[in-house]
Amino acid sequence: MTDDLFDRAVALDAADPLAAYREQFIVPDGFDVIAYLDGNSLGRPLEATARLLDEFVRGQWAGRLIRGWTDSWLDWPTILGDRLAAVALGAAAGQVVVADSTTVLLYKLARAAVDARPGRHKIILDTDNFPTDRYVLEGIAAERGLTLEWIDTDPLAGITPEQVAAVVDEDTALVLFSHVAYRSGWLADAPEITRIAHAAGALVLWDLSHSAGSVPLALDEWGVDLAVGCTYKYLNGGPGAPAFAYLRRDLQSELRQPIWGWMGHRASFEMGPGYEPAPGARALLSGTPPILAMVPLWANLEMLAAAGIGAVRAKSELLTGYALELADRWLRPLGVEVVSPRDAARRGGHVTLRRPGFEKLLEPLWEQGVIPDYRRPDGLRIGPAPLSTSFTEVHRGLATLRELVEQHP
Amino acid sequence: MTDDLFDRAVALDAADPLAAYREQFIVPDGFDVIAYLDGNSLGRPLEATARLLDEFVRGQWAGRLIRGWTDSWLDWPTILGDRLAAVALGAAAGQVVVADSTTVLLYKLARAAVDARPGRHKIILDTDNFPTDRYVLEGIAAERGLTLEWIDTDPLAGITPEQVAAVVDEDTALVLFSHVAYRSGWLADAPEITRIAHAAGALVLWDLSHSAGSVPLALDEWGVDLAVGCTYKYLNGGPGAPAFAYLRRDLQSELRQPIWGWMGHRASFEMGPGYEPAPGARALLSGTPPILAMVPLWANLEMLAAAGIGAVRAKSELLTGYALELADRWLRPLGVEVVSPRDAARRGGHVTLRRPGFEKLLEPLWEQGVIPDYRRPDGLRIGPAPLSTSFTEVHRGLATLRELVEQHP
Repeated sequence: MTDDLFDRAVALDAADPLAAYREQFIVPDGFDVIAYLDGNSLGRPLEATARLLDEFVRGQWAGRLIRGWTDSWLDWPTILGDRLAAVALGAAAGQVVVADSTTVLLYKLARAAVDARPGRHKIILDTDNFPTDRYVLEGIAAERGLTLEWIDTDPLAGITPEQVAAVVDEDTALVLFSHVAYRSGWLADAPEITRIAHAAGALVLWDLSHSAGSVPLALDEWGVDLAVGCTYKYLNGGPGAPAFAYLRRDLQSELRQPIWGWMGHRASFEMGPGYEPAPGARALLSGTPPILAMVPLWANLEMLAAAGIGAVRAKSELLTGYALELADRWLRPLGVEVVSPRDAARRGGHVTLRRPGFEKLLEPLWEQGVIPDYRRPDGLRIGPAPLSTSFTEVHRGLATLRELVEQHP
Repeated sequence: MTDDLFDRAVALDAADPLAAYREQFIVPDGFDVIAYLDGNSLGRPLEATARLLDEFVRGQWAGRLIRGWTDSWLDWPTILGDRLAAVALGAAAGQVVVADSTTVLLYKLARAAVDARPGRHKIILDTDNFPTDRYVLEGIAAERGLTLEWIDTDPLAGITPEQVAAVVDEDTALVLFSHVAYRSGWLADAPEITRIAHAAGALVLWDLSHSAGSVPLALDEWGVDLAVGCTYKYLNGGPGAPAFAYLRRDLQSELRQPIWGWMGHRASFEMGPGYEPAPGARALLSGTPPILAMVPLWANLEMLAAAGIGAVRAKSELLTGYALELADRWLRPLGVEVVSPRDAARRGGHVTLRRPGFEKLLEPLWEQGVIPDYRRPDGLRIGPAPLSTSFTEVHRGLATLRELVEQHP
């Protein structure tokens, strides 16, 4: 059978300037996966990650022991934060730390923000944000006596500047959105929304979990106040890898996060009687930094720096565009709906397909080695990580999905 | 030169039922350490840890990818928590999770505790507790309008039931102490102090960082309400390994921690509109569990289960007793003071030596491959982890210290 779409995949792979990066990822013996389309949930590990971890355990941990802390470990949260800032976030040094989990950092930053705007009583967020973002803010609103104002998101799209402008006002302490929506893949207009919130005197917190390492960011240029994100999606940090937090430099002396630990202290090893926050982003730290869990980031940030976030984004647009092409030709005639933006400029690194009964296809897909992401009640997310995914892989995955949809009409 | 103390070390090693466990730890090529006496700060890695990490990255992470979450990862915080509870904490299943850092878990538990006692305004702690414990409570007191009542600890000893009885009253919401004091090594009378606090209606939170894996615990039997601890000391979890939290079963429906994340939700993957805490200890979770960072615990908890916490404690008492013997014979005549309990029943897993100018000996000690812990202003902590330390190692370490003290009178 002739398949012009397969020929297109082959041609796109042949022309892909990032194709060689795929060889840096581990392919285990007996690997049963023919299409991994869930890089937006858990990135694959690099050969370099396995090597660095072994070197770390045998060399730094076993060999240097406690001396590792003064060798360099104490500074990993800020060194890796600065590196991440430069490579992926568009942020100058001194504003980012790697620490904790996204949820815990969300709590710290959101608390710091609302506590710094005591006369304002409202937090704005949207109904389609990732659960942890909604739950954290629900908890903070309950404990601080604040009101949550929900923007009802169009699940086919996402939050717009107009929606934000309609609700933000002089009583708004904080505005929280995901830069790339976890379901639709909608890429919010972060600079414009930030500008609108600032015009009303509100602080802005962006969740970058689905954009860091996938979409170019310019946090400094956009004037973003606060941001968090995870490192286990496009940054391949491993399951439950530490998160990152950004706190704009000129807010650092004003905002104070609530979990006062020894690692956020001005002088951790003086062990003095009262808490005094460290200068700069370091005050965002609380407990002992998760060093072992940060090891994979060293390799991944180097890879991203070499590839360049611009090239990653260019391939990402082609990958999701190609996935949409396959979906239009193969799946829409079978009743599958595309619930992600058509406009590449408003689309993050994944696209979501919807059809009643998709839940039942998840197991047969896995059995055939095709791994998309599933989101209740009926969404399949196709998240092809640009550095580890080929166009023929997307073709294989969606061809299998088509066969299964045909078999389960 | 005849050295009866060396002969004693050789005899103690020969009679040590745990001696063979030392072979399970990694000794890197060109290892420059002749005496590692800082197991109470950072435990050494096992060969099994390096192997498990590599297997995890290549097998579970690279091979199972996102499927790993439903294979088992989602339950690691409670599976490992239950295992830790059984092996080291004296707690029945369903009350312990592995997550976050000690500092973050301290914040969650202490907030949950004081928020559950709204009519009470006082938190009792001691001036010699580890900095993070003091800072976290200082922050909580500031945000909740509570008063900290400080017990002034005798640095030669630690907190006593009498001291607690003198200050705890019907206005006390929470009592927080370290079970083993990080400086003196004082082993607090946890069951009696817990009883006294309960008699006044206060909740009790124990920091077990220096006792988990070193001192037998019986949290259920003692009626402890809440506990936290780290896993990178005697549990060899690696630098910045995740911490653990214990919440007594019959408080689980009453106490609510403040960081509401998707992993503490009753049904994480429903991603529904409102936060509803999971039943049991799982409600202590917030963000995505730090899976990669938990890998070392599997090996270490198996080792501890095989060795038995009773045997570990027995060797620990002999090791610290032997260190005190060396200190008395060699170091006290040179002006070194022992600032740890003589009574083994009141002594944790380390002993502290004090002398003005000890700071200057740290670098020469390291240069000679002897690694104790240093605590400002003038304390050296000798923390021989029972599973990785021999008596001759303690002898080598303190013999080197003696030489250096003689050279720097």
